[in-house]
Parts: sequence; C-alpha cells; structure tokens
Amino acid sequence: MNYTNLDKTESYKKILSLKEKKIVYDSLDAARVRSCSVPMAGGLSYNWAAKAANSEVIAALAALAGEQELVDKYKALLNGETMNTGEGRKVLHHLLRGQLGKAVVHNGRDLGEFYRAELGRFSAFAENVRSGKIAGASGKAFKHVVQIGIGGSDLGPRALYLALDNWAAARKKKKLDAAFISNVDPDDASAVTAGLNMEETVFVLVSKSGTTQETLANELFVKGKLKKAGLDPGRHIVAVTSETSPLAHNPAYLDSFYIDDFIGGRYSSSSAVGGVILSLAFGPETFKEFLSGAHEADKLALETDIAKNAALLDALLGVWERNFLGYPATAVLPYSQALSRFPAHLQQLDMESNGKQVNRNGEPVAYATGPVVFGEPGTNGQHSFYQLLHQGTDIVPLQFAGFTESQRNDDVEVEGSVSQTKLNANLAAQIVAFAKGKDDPNRNKYFPGGRPSSLIHGKQLGPAALGSLLAHFENKVMFQGFVWNLNSFDQEGVQLGKILTKKVLSGVSGGGTGDSALDEYGKLLGL
Amino acid sequence: MNYTNLDKTESYKKILSLKEKKIVYDSLDAARVRSCSVPMAGGLSYNWAAKAANSEVIAALAALAGEQELVDKYKALLNGETMNTGEGRKVLHHLLRGQLGKAVVHNGRDLGEFYRAELGRFSAFAENVRSGKIAGASGKAFKHVVQIGIGGSDLGPRALYLALDNWAAARKKKKLDAAFISNVDPDDASAVTAGLNMEETVFVLVSKSGTTQETLANELFVKGKLKKAGLDPGRHIVAVTSETSPLAHNPAYLDSFYIDDFIGGRYSSSSAVGGVILSLAFGPETFKEFLSGAHEADKLALETDIAKNAALLDALLGVWERNFLGYPATAVLPYSQALSRFPAHLQQLDMESNGKQVNRNGEPVAYATGPVVFGEPGTNGQHSFYQLLHQGTDIVPLQFAGFTESQRNDDVEVEGSVSQTKLNANLAAQIVAFAKGKDDPNRNKYFPGGRPSSLIHGKQLGPAALGSLLAHFENKVMFQGFVWNLNSFDQEGVQLGKILTKKVLSGVSGGGTGDSALDEYGKLLGL
Repeated sequence: MNYTNLDKTESYKKILSLKEKKIVYDSLDAARVRSCSVPMAGGLSYNWAAKAANSEVIAALAALAGEQELVDKYKALLNGETMNTGEGRKVLHHLLRGQLGKAVVHNGRDLGEFYRAELGRFSAFAENVRSGKIAGASGKAFKHVVQIGIGGSDLGPRALYLALDNWAAARKKKKLDAAFISNVDPDDASAVTAGLNMEETVFVLVSKSGTTQETLANELFVKGKLKKAGLDPGRHIVAVTSETSPLAHNPAYLDSFYIDDFIGGRYSSSSAVGGVILSLAFGPETFKEFLSGAHEADKLALETDIAKNAALLDALLGVWERNFLGYPATAVLPYSQALSRFPAHLQQLDMESNGKQVNRNGEPVAYATGPVVFGEPGTNGQHSFYQLLHQGTDIVPLQFAGFTESQRNDDVEVEGSVSQTKLNANLAAQIVAFAKGKDDPNRNKYFPGGRPSSLIHGKQLGPAALGSLLAHFENKVMFQGFVWNLNSFDQEGVQLGKILTKKVLSGVSGGGTGDSALDEYGKLLGL
Repeated sequence: MNYTNLDKTESYKKILSLKEKKIVYDSLDAARVRSCSVPMAGGLSYNWAAKAANSEVIAALAALAGEQELVDKYKALLNGETMNTGEGRKVLHHLLRGQLGKAVVHNGRDLGEFYRAELGRFSAFAENVRSGKIAGASGKAFKHVVQIGIGGSDLGPRALYLALDNWAAARKKKKLDAAFISNVDPDDASAVTAGLNMEETVFVLVSKSGTTQETLANELFVKGKLKKAGLDPGRHIVAVTSETSPLAHNPAYLDSFYIDDFIGGRYSSSSAVGGVILSLAFGPETFKEFLSGAHEADKLALETDIAKNAALLDALLGVWERNFLGYPATAVLPYSQALSRFPAHLQQLDMESNGKQVNRNGEPVAYATGPVVFGEPGTNGQHSFYQLLHQGTDIVPLQFAGFTESQRNDDVEVEGSVSQTKLNANLAAQIVAFAKGKDDPNRNKYFPGGRPSSLIHGKQLGPAALGSLLAHFENKVMFQGFVWNLNSFDQEGVQLGKILTKKVLSGVSGGGTGDSALDEYGKLLGL
C-alpha cells in the first residue's frame, strides 16, 4: 500500500488547477438533482446536487481516490491490518456489525466470534431485564437505565438513544427509560440520580480502560446513592470494559460485557458501549436492526465507483471544500428533532479523528485537516445561526438530513398542511436558498448564494436507517483520514490536559505544580 | 456620532502593523494571570491572561474603541436612538433590567414604565400559579410549564432554565418543572406532551409577531391535546407577544404579557419571553435577581477604560482574533453542566447578530464579521473535540467559564479530591495546556500551544451570576457590531427561506413552485 501526503499526490496539482473554476449554481435544476443521487443503506439516499462540484471536479476527486487507494486501505482495515499506527492497534468497529474481510485472529482468538458472543450475551441480559427475570436488589423490576461514561461512551449512545426514543415508544418497543451521567461536575450525577427511584434503576458503567477519572468518580457517587437507599450496588451496576481493565471480571457487578483495544471510543456505539443501553431500552432486536443497517452501509463503502459510494463521495467533496475551496467549518443540520444530539456525536467523531497536524508516521503535514463541525436540528437552526450561514462573510458547507415521515405519526394540520410537510418544505427551501441566493437592490436583503450543501434523505428514521447514517459518517471520516494520510484512530491531543490535571490535583495538597500560572488559575477556581 | 467601517479607521492600520508580532506564551505566569483580571457583575471576573495580546495590542484596541466611539454608541442605544437601522427600531433590551439612560418615550408611552409594569404583572401571575390560586380547568394546581416558541423564544429561556434548575431545586425554590416545544417537526410536540398530565400543565405561547409558522402549528397541536383531555385550552395557555400581533388582547388565553418591537428575539430572555417561564419555575424573586445581575453588568459596560470593562475588552480581543489573527471560529466551553445549552444560546446571539456582510447602511464590508460559535460543557468536550483544538491545523480561540462551588453541594471524594475539585483542576490544566503546549520529539505527542483562551469565573452559578453572564455576551456582541459598523439587531438572512417555504407549500397543492430544483427536492422529501 502507498501512504502519501495529500500534497505529494499527482491529483493534488490537478485539483488545484480546478480551484479557480466558477461553479455555476444556475444549472441547479430538477435534472441535476435527479442525477446527483447515490443510494445508501437502510433506505436512505445521498444527494449532492447542491455541492459546488461539476463533472470535472468529480472526475479529479475519483482519480485522487484511486491514487490514495482509499478503498484498498479500507479493505486492509477490514482484514485486520494495524491501521492505528501510533498505538499499534487494529481498527475493528466494522466487525461488530458483520464480517466483510478475512477472519481477524488475535492471540489465537477469532475477534468476529468474540464480538458476536458478547452481542449474544448482552442481548440475553437485556431480554432478562426487560422481562423482569433480572430485577433490582429489592426485587422490583428495572424501569430506568443510566449510562455512566464520557466521550465515546456517552455522545454516540446518547445520540442513538434519542434518535430512536420516539420510534420505539410509538411501536411499544420501549421498556426502560434511559438517562446519562457523563460530566465530572457533581451536579450532573446529583441531578440525574435525584429524579430516580434507585430500586428500579440499573446503571451501565462504561470505560474501556477502566481508569477514566470522570467515570470512576461518578461510579462511586452512584454507589453511595445506592447504599444510602439500602440497595446492594452489585445488583444494580453492569460494567462495559475491556478484559484487561481493572473493572473486568469483577463479581461485584451484576454482569460485565467486553470490548477490546481495537474498538475506539468514538467508534464504539456498535459494541456493548451502545448496545447494552439500547437493547435494555428498546430491545435487542431493535439494536440488531441498527447493526444490520450499519453493516449494509459498510458493504456499500467497498464500492470503487465514487458515483455509487456515498461515504467515499461525501469524504472527497469534504476534502474539495476543505483543502481546495478553503472552508474551515461544516454544519450538520438534521431536519428531525430525534437527531438533536447527532451533531454532537459527529463533532466528536470527526474532530477527534481528523483534528491532527501530523501524518500516520508522525510527520507534520502542510495542509488543512479536519474542519470544525457543529450543528443543531432544523427548523430550529433557521431561527438561530442560519443568518450567518446565509449572509455571513465566510462560507460554511452544510450537511442536511430529512425524512418523509415522522416517527410518532401524531401530527396536526394548520393552514392546509401538516407539520411534517412544513418541516420538509422548509428543508427543500433552505437548500435552494443557500445554493441560488437572491439578488436584491437592497444589499441588506441580498443573498449571495453559492453556499454548498448535501442532503441525506429517506422515508423514516428507524433503526436500520440510523445504523446506515452512523456508519456513513464513520466511513466518511475514515476515507478523509486516508486522503490526508492521517491516523484517524488515536487521540494524543487529550493527553497533556490529563497530565496537567494530575499535577494540579497533587499540587493542591502539596506545594504547587511548579508552574506559577497553573497554580494561579487553580486559585482563581478555588483550589 | 461617527459610523465608519473598521478598515477605514486609523486604528485598523496601526493594529495591522502589530499583526506579525509574535506573542510569547512563555511570559504566562502568576503575575500575568493576576494582572489580567477584570471584575464583572454578579461576583464574576473576566481573565484574559491566556489571550495572545500584550500591552501594545491592548493599547491599540483601546484606541480603536475610542475611535469607533463604542461606549458612546452604547449610550445612544440606551437613550433610545434608532440603532436597528434597517428596521427603523430602537434597541431596548437593557431597559428591561433597569434604567441607565434617559427615559425612552415612544408614542407618548414611557417604555421603561411599560416593561416594569409587565414584569409586575407576570410576577403576580407566577405567584398565583405557584400558590395554586390560578389552577387548570379541572381545578388541579399546575405542576408543569411548557414553553412553545422557537429561536430567541426558545434557546435563551431554555439555556437559563437549565442553568438555574439545580440551583433552585437545591434551595427548594423550584415549583414547576419546565419543558420546551420548538421544532415544527411534529415528533417534538408529540413527545413532550405524551409524557405530561395535561390537567397540571400550563403552556406559555411565545411569538412576538404572532405569525411564527412553527409556533402557531405547535399551538394548535397543543390545543388539540388539551381538548382531547377534556380541558378548555383557554384555561391552560398564556400568550407572550407584542400588542400589535394577532395573538394580542385575546380573551381566549388565560393571560397575556407583552413585549414590543424594540426587544429583539435573541435579546428577549430578560423580558416576559424568559421571565414568565422562569418566574413560574423558580419564583419571581429568582428572576428579578437574574435581572439585577444583568443590570449591574450593563452598568459596568459603560466604563470607558477597557481594562475595567470586561464586555468591551472581550469584544475587542475577539476582533483582534477575527480580523487580525484570522481565526474563523470560537468555542464556548463552560465547566458547568448547568450551562449545557448556554453555548447554543450564544451561537444564536452571536451568529445571528453579526453574521452579516453589509454595514448598517447596507453597504458591503471588506472584512470578516461574526465568527462561527460552538461549544459543549467541560469536561465532556475534553473527551470529544478538544483533540482538534489542541492539535488541529487551525487555531480556535476558547471562552472558558468555571465556578468554585457546585450548585447542589452533593459531591463525592475519590482518590483524595471531590468531583468539583477535579472539574476545576481540569479547567486550569486545559487553559495552560492550550497556551503553553508541550514539546516532544515524537511529533504525534507534540502540542504547539499558542491557542488563546479567556476565563470567566466566580464562586457559584446563581441567578445574579447568570444575569451577569448573559448581559456580558449581549454587550460583547453589541460592541463587536459597533466595531464592524454593522446593524447587529436585524436578521434579513432568514427571510429568503421563509419565502421559498411558502412557495413550496402552495406549490404542493398547485402546479409547482416555478423552480424545478425546488420541486425536485420537495419530491425527494415526499411532498
């Protein structure tokens, strides 16, 4: 395999030469919309008609995909190659959803089998809790589940829970209500637990390493509350961790489910990290449907024709916008309240994976890598930050998503249309408004247009569509990492803060940290 | 008053000449931290020690403040000048919190008196609901309040409610639980109302114009649910609107409270828009304490010495970073779970106010205006997008906030420290890590540093501190608008989407919109 920095490729020069070409949004008509559609898994489609890219740009991006061997690198990853170079690890979250490459054997164990066995174990556990066979210390059935975890152990599972909550409730699949404790701010754990009947609550403690400061503090917080309620914590907490962590194989937990070092935190929603809480809340069948949508998306990402590979095309259009058009940020704008926290998950997924300035060999790169990612659901955002998106001095590419049907099918007709129709009318209108703008002699009412967007759409947001959506973005970020020649699977940028935090915490009791500014900031904060 | 584009000022050239100066973070020590502190209202302080600015930069920014007459323009605004030029309106949200300028009389009415009278009316209403004197149609006391509103009628009030929820609960000031319906996505209203006992629920319908599509659809949705529960909607809905709106003076509402055209949506949290729901939930005294913190901050913003005016200094440092250092985005990172939605409010406040490309006279400007604003609470963000902030290829200035004490005073000690201490140790560590970085022969573990931040800190997040915080950012955004010579108080960028949405909605029943792309996007979304 060839690992080359983006600016050393032949394609780079070619694409740079296209840079000054004016992309004309006047050609955005029904025919272009129809011709720019790529099928995705789970009944979704990716439409890039409103992107600032003509056939010449697409051809050049396709050549870049070939030159950087993007699909081949994905295949190598699926086959268990050490793609997390810095940490010397395989990258196996795809395997959680199904086998697409060779069997991956590590230390004599077939990891596909291992992941499937864990899925089976926590599915059975979830069934037993949902049926009441497994109950709390006082004998009461569990009605609430609370996940204790931070980062990848929180954002993905939380986004997915909210995405399916209404869908499951409307189909009577929901049995347990879920809540999440993430922040080390004690007000977080205090507020979540204050509203709960602890007798009816099961906690899912999630830390791959078993050493996450926030999560261990919150575990002890929760144990204290359970004891205070006269309940044995061991009957109310299950652990999700790696087999080598200090939390593993501890009979003091109700049960334990395992992942390994090859499942990165921000890629772990498809493992027990997301699976336990989603299976408890909505049933294991719902979680398996989610996995099958993701697996289907993973399969489509193997397609070498970029016109048929939505994740690959999305990745390359992102590179076009980031490195050749020079746009530093991207907004994720789902027209679906269920996806209210999906942008926060993508923010981690993207910024933690590709917010790097060295390549996979640890050498500095001379081009921009991952953008800032932010977003809120529409139509809410329209009444908030869209002003800047339409008329600000910078251009921000937009990722829209929308669904024909609502999840609860509980709607109201006002002035000749139901709310779901209004929602989607707004979405269609925004895409065209951003692309085409509007001339006006009053410059305050003038819209420059030329603001690119893409649209992911489908009939309804259910488990398979959600799995497809999640895997799409995971694969997009992976392909971008390959284009930029990064290791998208480590996160060394979080280490320095941890080291300095420890210094502060030991400095509090001792004689300071040795850095007078650090000590002074500590004083300002009451330490 | 002189209204000049930033790039036409004398100061602009001077500051440009400073641009290439290297700001050395090696000088960040205890003395600098102590010397860079500005008192704020409500017991808070603003510390800018970790900003990339030396005394020469500060002096040049102070000169810019003088040249652009920033404080004078603020005074003119307080005195009722038409600062919202495009719409020909005064800008009077400060007056909701107290009088700092001349009496503002409009059409023979003293508007300060008008706002105070409305505050008095909704305070009395809230007391009567909290005491049970005003109850629902079936005679049951109200236990829940649901705000129906979008944009400024949602984000600010929601952020403030969450910010004080734990504070009020721990002090037994909380009487009503609050929820919010904003999105036109019918799943939003359906999910919120599904979990409520309608007999015990009062709705606050908020739309200044009385014509907001989303809010009117959600009003009818809620009315349907009330009727279905056998309840008279008129006994369960109060309106907050302007006196000229179609919702005004309607005896079919339980009560109505008024604002006017001089209170912009994103600046309306201090009016009945935020005041009714906060007074119902936490009591009118809590809301008045919040107002007094904001009023105190407004007073401090009159200070002409930028070393003593935190909002002015923050604004100018932001301009330094945006226009002279070239940073396109800013992250807001409160180390307080209570402020989880405060960044979303600031995102609207900032991006909708200053995301403009024409000046207050409608002439195009040739420099960057408002940045992209995003953020999540810490420590959560540390486990998410901080990777990019530390080691990404772009620099993103950071706005931190932290408090010595938690709100609920319910904490746990683990390994020698309580969680609140860990929270603040992390915050101190991050500021220094971003500023100073860390050298490492392994470039993957190398931190470049030089990533500027400021810190707002105080003893505890209570109502007065929250008011101070809100007003600080409102005033910061106002001052930046003055520097950029913008009208920060209109939002023409939202109009085109509304027009096209109407076209789509009438096109659905008729023969299309006349734009084949728009029609085709509608089809993709099932219209």
